[in-house]
Amino acid sequence: VIAVVCLNPALDVTYHVDALVRGQSVRVSSVRERAGGKGVNVARVLAALGEPPCLLGFAGGRYASVLADVGLDACWTPIAGTTRRTVTVVDGEATLLLEPGPVVSDQEWRAFEASFDDVLASDPAVVVLAGSLPAGVPADAYGRLVERADTAGVRSVLDADGAALRAGVAAHPYLAKPNAGEARALGGGLCAGAAGGAGEFSGSLGDLVTGVLAAGARNAVVSCGADGLLAVLDGRRYRAYGPVVEGNPTGAGDALTAVLARGIATGAAWTDVLRQAIATAAAAAAAPAAGEFDARVADDLLPRVSVEEI
Amino acid sequence: VIAVVCLNPALDVTYHVDALVRGQSVRVSSVRERAGGKGVNVARVLAALGEPPCLLGFAGGRYASVLADVGLDACWTPIAGTTRRTVTVVDGEATLLLEPGPVVSDQEWRAFEASFDDVLASDPAVVVLAGSLPAGVPADAYGRLVERADTAGVRSVLDADGAALRAGVAAHPYLAKPNAGEARALGGGLCAGAAGGAGEFSGSLGDLVTGVLAAGARNAVVSCGADGLLAVLDGRRYRAYGPVVEGNPTGAGDALTAVLARGIATGAAWTDVLRQAIATAAAAAAAPAAGEFDARVADDLLPRVSVEEI
Repeated sequence: VIAVVCLNPALDVTYHVDALVRGQSVRVSSVRERAGGKGVNVARVLAALGEPPCLLGFAGGRYASVLADVGLDACWTPIAGTTRRTVTVVDGEATLLLEPGPVVSDQEWRAFEASFDDVLASDPAVVVLAGSLPAGVPADAYGRLVERADTAGVRSVLDADGAALRAGVAAHPYLAKPNAGEARALGGGLCAGAAGGAGEFSGSLGDLVTGVLAAGARNAVVSCGADGLLAVLDGRRYRAYGPVVEGNPTGAGDALTAVLARGIATGAAWTDVLRQAIATAAAAAAAPAAGEFDARVADDLLPRVSVEEI
Repeated sequence: VIAVVCLNPALDVTYHVDALVRGQSVRVSSVRERAGGKGVNVARVLAALGEPPCLLGFAGGRYASVLADVGLDACWTPIAGTTRRTVTVVDGEATLLLEPGPVVSDQEWRAFEASFDDVLASDPAVVVLAGSLPAGVPADAYGRLVERADTAGVRSVLDADGAALRAGVAAHPYLAKPNAGEARALGGGLCAGAAGGAGEFSGSLGDLVTGVLAAGARNAVVSCGADGLLAVLDGRRYRAYGPVVEGNPTGAGDALTAVLARGIATGAAWTDVLRQAIATAAAAAAAPAAGEFDARVADDLLPRVSVEEI
C-alpha cells in the first residue's frame, strides 16, 4: 500500500453566489463541502487509479469529521486546534478565503511521528509527503520524515514548496516533484516561458531539474505547465509533454504526484510512468475539482503524449 | 423557566482580513465562531439577566455541535440537513455570506412539535418564538405554535418578520414585537422618520402599533430605532425612549425581546419592564456581538430612559 502524509488537510467549502459585493449581505445559492489539501487530493487520485492509499496527518475541531468522508483508510493524529477551511466564493470569478489553520504542539508532532513510524513498520511501497506544513511543526518536518522513511527502507516522494520543500529535499528523498516555479525558488535556475505545448527544450529548464538534484533529491520531476515536464530518474534524463488542457493546475499537479508514486510502487518503466502521468494530469486539469479526473479522458489523451530520453 | 424557540439557528463565523478583493486569495488573520440566530441571542440575554431559558429548535450537520457551546439547557430536534452558517468577512466593512440553511422534512417538523409539547407540559412561564423559519416547515409554523401554547395556557412572545410574522400574529400571540419596518410590512401604517432620540410622537407610529393589534396580537411593542418604542399593553398605550446608542441594531432588538419576555414571566409593572427593556437594548446596541451586553452600561442608561403612558 502507498502511504500519503497530509499534515495540513483542509475543509474546502465552495459557495456559489450571484455577485460578491464588499460591504453587502450576499445570499449563498449553493454550498459544497469536501475534504481538501494536497495530500488528500493525491490520495483521491491514487484510489481512483485502483491503489487506495493510507492517509495520515493532523485533524482537529468540529470540521475534522469531513476527513472521514474521503472514504479512505486514514490514521489522523488528533489535535487541539481546528482543521483549516478554505472558502471559495464563486460568482464568475473565484475569491478565496484561506483560514490560518491550527497550531500543532510539540506533543502532537511527536504523536504524529509515532503514528508515522507505525505506518512505516507496515512496510508501505512508497510514502508521499504532500502539501504545506501547519504552524508549530518543525521547519524541517519533511526532512525528518524522509530520514525516518529512509531508515525504514521506504522510498519517499516529496511534493511541497518553499522552505518545507527545501528542508525536505536536503534529506535526499527518493523523488522530489516541484513545479518549475517551486524548483526555481529552490535555486535551480530559470524557467522557460510557458508558451507552446511542445515548446522547445531549453537549457534553463535543464538547469532547473539539475538544481533539484543538487539540492539533494535522488530523482526529480519538474513540471512546467504547458511545456510538459523534465525528469532525471535513475541518472537518465527524460522530457515529456502532452496536449495542452486549460483548467485546474492544482489538480494536475496532484494527479502527477499520484501517478509517479504508483509507478514507483509498481516498478513500472519510467517512460510508461511519465506517459501515464502526463495523460492523467491533463485529464485532472480538465476536471472541476482537484483530486478528480475522468479515466476515459486520460486514456484518450495517452496516444498524444510524447516521452523521450534526452 | 422561559422557553425560547429558535427554529433556524446558525453558526456565525467571523473572518478578519486585510482587504476582501473579488477574484483574489485572501488570508484570514482571525477566525471567530459562535452559535447565532435570533432565538439563540435572545436566550443569551435571558441567561445574562439571570433567567437561563430552555432552547429548542432544529440542529443538524457537522456544525450543530456549536449549538452545545451556548451553555444553556437545550432540546434540539435533530435534522438530516445542515445548520446554516453566516460568514461575516470584516475588512473595515462587513460583507456577509448567508448560507441557505437546511430543508426540514414533515417528519422532522412533527418531531419538533412533539418536543414543543413536552416543553409546554413542563409549564414554562413564557414561550418566545424568535427569528426566521427554515425551508420546509409550514408557512404558518408560528401560528401553529402560538395555538399550541394557548391550548397549554402558556403566553407566547413573537419576534419575527415577513410572512412568518403575519401568520404568527394571526393566531393571537400574547405579545408581538416587530420593529417599525416589520410592523409596516404587516400593513400597520407608515413609520415616522428615525431622526431624534426624543423625536415627537407621530400619528403614523400610533397607526403602526394599532395595525399590529388589528392583525391579531393581544399586546404589541413596536421598536423604532432612535425613536424608541411604542406599545399597547393590557389596553394601555405607552411610549418609551432612551439615549441614542450607535451600534448593533440586531443585538438591540434581541435584548428588547428578552427583557419583555422576562417581564411577562415575572409579572413586573409594564412601565418598569419597558424602562429596563430600553436600557438593555441600548447597552446591547453598544456591544460588539448580538446577544451580548454590559449590565453596568444598562444600569447607567436606566435613569436616562423615559416611559410614559399616552
